[in-house]
Amino acid sequence: MNHIQFENGKLILLDQRKLPFSEEFIVCETAEDVARAIKDMIVRGAPAIGITAAYGFAMGIKEGLDVDDVYSLLLNTRPTAVNLKWALDRMKNFYKKAGNDYFKLLEEVRKIHLEDIEINRKIGENGADLFKSKVSILTHCNAGALATGDYGTALGVIRSLHKRGLIKKVLVDETRPYLQGARLTAYEMVKEGIPHFVITDNTSGLLMSRGEVDAVIVGADRIAKNGDTANKIGTFMLAVLANYFNIPFYIAAPVSTFDFSIESGNEIVIEERGRDEVALINGKSIIPEKSPVLHFGFDITPNELITGFITEKGVVKPPFDLLQKA
Amino acid sequence: MNHIQFENGKLILLDQRKLPFSEEFIVCETAEDVARAIKDMIVRGAPAIGITAAYGFAMGIKEGLDVDDVYSLLLNTRPTAVNLKWALDRMKNFYKKAGNDYFKLLEEVRKIHLEDIEINRKIGENGADLFKSKVSILTHCNAGALATGDYGTALGVIRSLHKRGLIKKVLVDETRPYLQGARLTAYEMVKEGIPHFVITDNTSGLLMSRGEVDAVIVGADRIAKNGDTANKIGTFMLAVLANYFNIPFYIAAPVSTFDFSIESGNEIVIEERGRDEVALINGKSIIPEKSPVLHFGFDITPNELITGFITEKGVVKPPFDLLQKA
Repeated sequence: MNHIQFENGKLILLDQRKLPFSEEFIVCETAEDVARAIKDMIVRGAPAIGITAAYGFAMGIKEGLDVDDVYSLLLNTRPTAVNLKWALDRMKNFYKKAGNDYFKLLEEVRKIHLEDIEINRKIGENGADLFKSKVSILTHCNAGALATGDYGTALGVIRSLHKRGLIKKVLVDETRPYLQGARLTAYEMVKEGIPHFVITDNTSGLLMSRGEVDAVIVGADRIAKNGDTANKIGTFMLAVLANYFNIPFYIAAPVSTFDFSIESGNEIVIEERGRDEVALINGKSIIPEKSPVLHFGFDITPNELITGFITEKGVVKPPFDLLQKA
Repeated sequence: MNHIQFENGKLILLDQRKLPFSEEFIVCETAEDVARAIKDMIVRGAPAIGITAAYGFAMGIKEGLDVDDVYSLLLNTRPTAVNLKWALDRMKNFYKKAGNDYFKLLEEVRKIHLEDIEINRKIGENGADLFKSKVSILTHCNAGALATGDYGTALGVIRSLHKRGLIKKVLVDETRPYLQGARLTAYEMVKEGIPHFVITDNTSGLLMSRGEVDAVIVGADRIAKNGDTANKIGTFMLAVLANYFNIPFYIAAPVSTFDFSIESGNEIVIEERGRDEVALINGKSIIPEKSPVLHFGFDITPNELITGFITEKGVVKPPFDLLQKA
């Protein structure tokens, strides 16, 4: 997908806000630029944010910034995705050993990046093994190549299923307000030639009631020790509906998305975002000027609604002792 | 609200597609114009469609059209709302007695219109009687003054609660794809000074999990004999969620919305609508050119998920024998 490229000391990011209508790239020359790119959602998706921040860390050290300053600068960009902290912790620990050696730091970042792609391929294969005949998969938001180093988590499973000839259709929730499904997941489906339909977020219940959904597969931003999962707002509603219809509901995520430091979803901070993301579409308002909005970026799906967690280590359920040791 | 006015033989409709940003009116000079206005959703909302079609019927008779032709022309505009058929049947029966007398026909239409407003006020009072303390009400789509002769059904209950000082806040689902909540319900809330927040359709689950929703109240397009209810796509999902959290879920609708000729929701035709309503917002595409969409206008909420039906005759549950006799 080449949406995260590093060349001559500069991080070149595909501007995901402009997709699918134009493929524009943003060049980050400093750690500060990288932090802004994460905050402004030029890059989004928990694993992709982690990789991007790791590049930013190496760039900040090269600039001569204090290690703790560059760590905080990048950590404080988005509050929910745990991979951000995971990647920055890994870089900080590596820094303690390698010190100021920029090229060694950069090698570690590239390792994180390539490992992530490899992990996604394993997630894809492990998830595809769950299905033996042609299926219709519903997904929410974009847990795709664009949200990761490449290949994707939930869309990784869909890519692997498609390779095996097992995709009947993908139902793509448009995912208001940011429309990651309509814009990004649909873009990836078109690029791969995978049969799909975009639907409004209001449509999944009707399609489930008509037997049009064989499984729901989504990504995750943070998974607590008990399996409670933070993911894009609307995920929880899908889980309740899937449960109502006895449709399997899977979370596809790398082990780095598990946060063993928190017992349950109650400890996860839900990001509140600004009015404009709801009120404006394509720069034009869709609501009265005097109407306030309530806008949360994520919700929490309780573990009891989750059929299984598709990871690079296999499909698991809590307790996650094996993952924690890994 | 004056969104349906009849003057000098012409029907003047507030163009609801332009709200809340401009208040433009469309003038219908013929029954054909009226049919097009209904089809193009210049006017929408089950009771409002019924009233509009009744005006169109009188206009068509005045034009000298065949009674069966004008009846079919107006009936075939939208397939789901039963009030359309109810109003046209009433006009046709009246025509059998009154004949070609245009002014008598017009008097009957005005009676339908005024009765509808009176019915909505009763629905509002009956619904408000369900609550004794300040509440947060979640609503979907627009079952308001704009969807009826005036005052509204679900929003009628909210108006009556507000008059009694019992509204903490109204949570307004934006209601993709047509954004009736974001555009029309929010517009009505601003006009009435009722405290409210617009939310994306993905947000209700999170708010329910946080105890921020005391009841869900929505309108209906058609209610079967067993209580299964067709309403705007997304309604069914709210009912499943409310059920999961034991939050009361009410349908507010006049008796004319009940279709005693069908036993259950299985017999209700769900309108499929065109790609552009999902793909375009403010005239600009939000999805890749090559992505198809699946777009249904309505879904069916099974009776077992509905706490009660707020009608002008009181709050009822099936069997609806008393309503049927009324």
